Amino acid sequence: MQELRVTYVLTCVEGEDPESKARAIAFEQTVELPPECVTAEVERRVVGRVERVAELSAPRWEAVIAFPESALGEDATQLLNVLFGNISLQSGIRVKQIEWPDSYLGRFAGPWYGVDGLRWLCGVSEPRPLICGALKPMGLATDELARLCFRMASGGVDIVKDDHGLVDQADAPFRERVAACQQAVNDANEKTGGSTVYFPNVTGAASDLDERLGLARDAGCRGVLLAPLLVGPDAVRLIADRYEFAILSHPSLAGAFFAPEHGIAPELLLGDLFRLIGSDGVIYPNAGGRFPLTEPTCASINSRLRGPMGGFRPAFPVPGGGIDVARVPHWIERYGVDTVFLIGGSLYSQSDLVAAGRSLLETVRRAARV
Amino acid sequence: MQELRVTYVLTCVEGEDPESKARAIAFEQTVELPPECVTAEVERRVVGRVERVAELSAPRWEAVIAFPESALGEDATQLLNVLFGNISLQSGIRVKQIEWPDSYLGRFAGPWYGVDGLRWLCGVSEPRPLICGALKPMGLATDELARLCFRMASGGVDIVKDDHGLVDQADAPFRERVAACQQAVNDANEKTGGSTVYFPNVTGAASDLDERLGLARDAGCRGVLLAPLLVGPDAVRLIADRYEFAILSHPSLAGAFFAPEHGIAPELLLGDLFRLIGSDGVIYPNAGGRFPLTEPTCASINSRLRGPMGGFRPAFPVPGGGIDVARVPHWIERYGVDTVFLIGGSLYSQSDLVAAGRSLLETVRRAARV
Repeated sequence: MQELRVTYVLTCVEGEDPESKARAIAFEQTVELPPECVTAEVERRVVGRVERVAELSAPRWEAVIAFPESALGEDATQLLNVLFGNISLQSGIRVKQIEWPDSYLGRFAGPWYGVDGLRWLCGVSEPRPLICGALKPMGLATDELARLCFRMASGGVDIVKDDHGLVDQADAPFRERVAACQQAVNDANEKTGGSTVYFPNVTGAASDLDERLGLARDAGCRGVLLAPLLVGPDAVRLIADRYEFAILSHPSLAGAFFAPEHGIAPELLLGDLFRLIGSDGVIYPNAGGRFPLTEPTCASINSRLRGPMGGFRPAFPVPGGGIDVARVPHWIERYGVDTVFLIGGSLYSQSDLVAAGRSLLETVRRAARV
Repeated sequence: MQELRVTYVLTCVEGEDPESKARAIAFEQTVELPPECVTAEVERRVVGRVERVAELSAPRWEAVIAFPESALGEDATQLLNVLFGNISLQSGIRVKQIEWPDSYLGRFAGPWYGVDGLRWLCGVSEPRPLICGALKPMGLATDELARLCFRMASGGVDIVKDDHGLVDQADAPFRERVAACQQAVNDANEKTGGSTVYFPNVTGAASDLDERLGLARDAGCRGVLLAPLLVGPDAVRLIADRYEFAILSHPSLAGAFFAPEHGIAPELLLGDLFRLIGSDGVIYPNAGGRFPLTEPTCASINSRLRGPMGGFRPAFPVPGGGIDVARVPHWIERYGVDTVFLIGGSLYSQSDLVAAGRSLLETVRRAARV
């Protein structure tokens, strides 16, 4: 029987025994009963097995628990449930590492496009990072948003994505906005000979998802933006499997899991898990911007998205959250060419958006030496 | 224009100015652009308005931000996005209080059954708490689970709910398990003249939800268990609106939001938000059990679920997570009769489940003096 081997970092309070804490997790996350109420047979077949508990530096301990595949379902909801569902309500437990058996990964398809597919969609075969511009702010009317799309695409930005706060507000209703923005991108592509791709945000009510996806498809969109923790991670997988869209995932709410002593390591949640459910690119808040992720954490997210994982295609890391255009060469050197740089405010703060896009593209090409 | 008034508790680090932090939240959660990139007109219409920043006790401050309804969508995904989406990735920000305008609540139906409806389903008109038994552990075969259902229902437990880890594992596949368990409960009801209600767990892949709900309906189930943070909060609302099931919501993953200085107050997430999306009862980890919520927090969850909120029906608080049967009278005195007590291990640790149920029911009746 294959097992999912999970490493937790346990932070123990006065009087808390790490061995007991590890054993309690193994029971809580599977049978959710005290050991004396569980038969030996059930324990053997479904309870997590504590493989190892080792001291890191007091009061931190590392516990490896192997969960039998029979406890896991076929989808991301039960995976998250077993990894961190009930123990989220306790404290001092952080999911640090997961060893994925290939048999388990085989239940998922991972990214359908991935790095090569997104490059193909955007017509960028040269080995350089992609540039993604954010369409915002909410509050603008449809024609104003469409004009911004036209300008970003005219400047040569590879991807224009909706801000994740653009949903179906009266200022720019989804149906109208998506059609107008895709048309504006088409117009710019026709003029420049480029192939900028527009990703509308389809995050919304469960009852509206299919309609929005249908409208996006009818408008000719080739990709969509989704926030997995808002729509539910498995909804992303369903969309990846059923529609032909490339998927950019947004980290809205993810930070709730990033407390230093309790939660899920960012590289696992935004890396492994978001890739597993089918994200072709994953947006995360880059180090040095408005958010406190460190550079080593960002590097880990990158390697989780691009490194070997079952038979999955590599996905694009999409650092954003306050990247200054002037610092892009620095980040290219750090993160490499298989990266999408998401630039928001730093483009908008320049008076001419077309020129700003062009200049950024030049910078990227120069820094990547293509 | 109506506004959603949100109180955040800001914990400031050295050099962090609370006024600037509040203003940054107001922009981050709406336009997600620096103030200089936003026109006065857009700022007036959609940016959050900082109404007040007051010192609590250093380094904590309270900031009230009014978000215009035009920034909010029609569903729970955009609500969570605006409340805490991007700022989840920052630190020292806790959503403490929400003042709901009736016009906004009018977009939601709240609980369809609520306290009275659930009492009616369970045939309990006498003013006493309801008893909920948990069906577990995973790893048992269908016939073993069905036998446990029969015993709990024979003992007079009002609700039997699946453990939230029971999904569609090979040991007891969903289709077979739900039919057999509902049948076992029917058989017991027929024998005792009771009306125990069985709530199967339908949490699962987005692609399977409708099938599972259909199977549960065909089996004659009248309620279902869902974990809103696994399936996505709006999926719960969709099910509440489209199906005739009563809904018990499970707090899996919710604890990620309960860090003391960063997150969403438990009474808002499990109280207001879970009620808004249509939960008729909300399971939470009671004080004094295996989880660290305090009794005042539990009391706040109770009052958020049962107190006035727009035109919504009151929902049942369902404290669980290690309640000892011997302590039930204590909790009845604290929480009142409009409570469902979820008892797991403390029933299973008794050798005769039927007698354990009967005795608990007697205890509850005596304590509630009915």
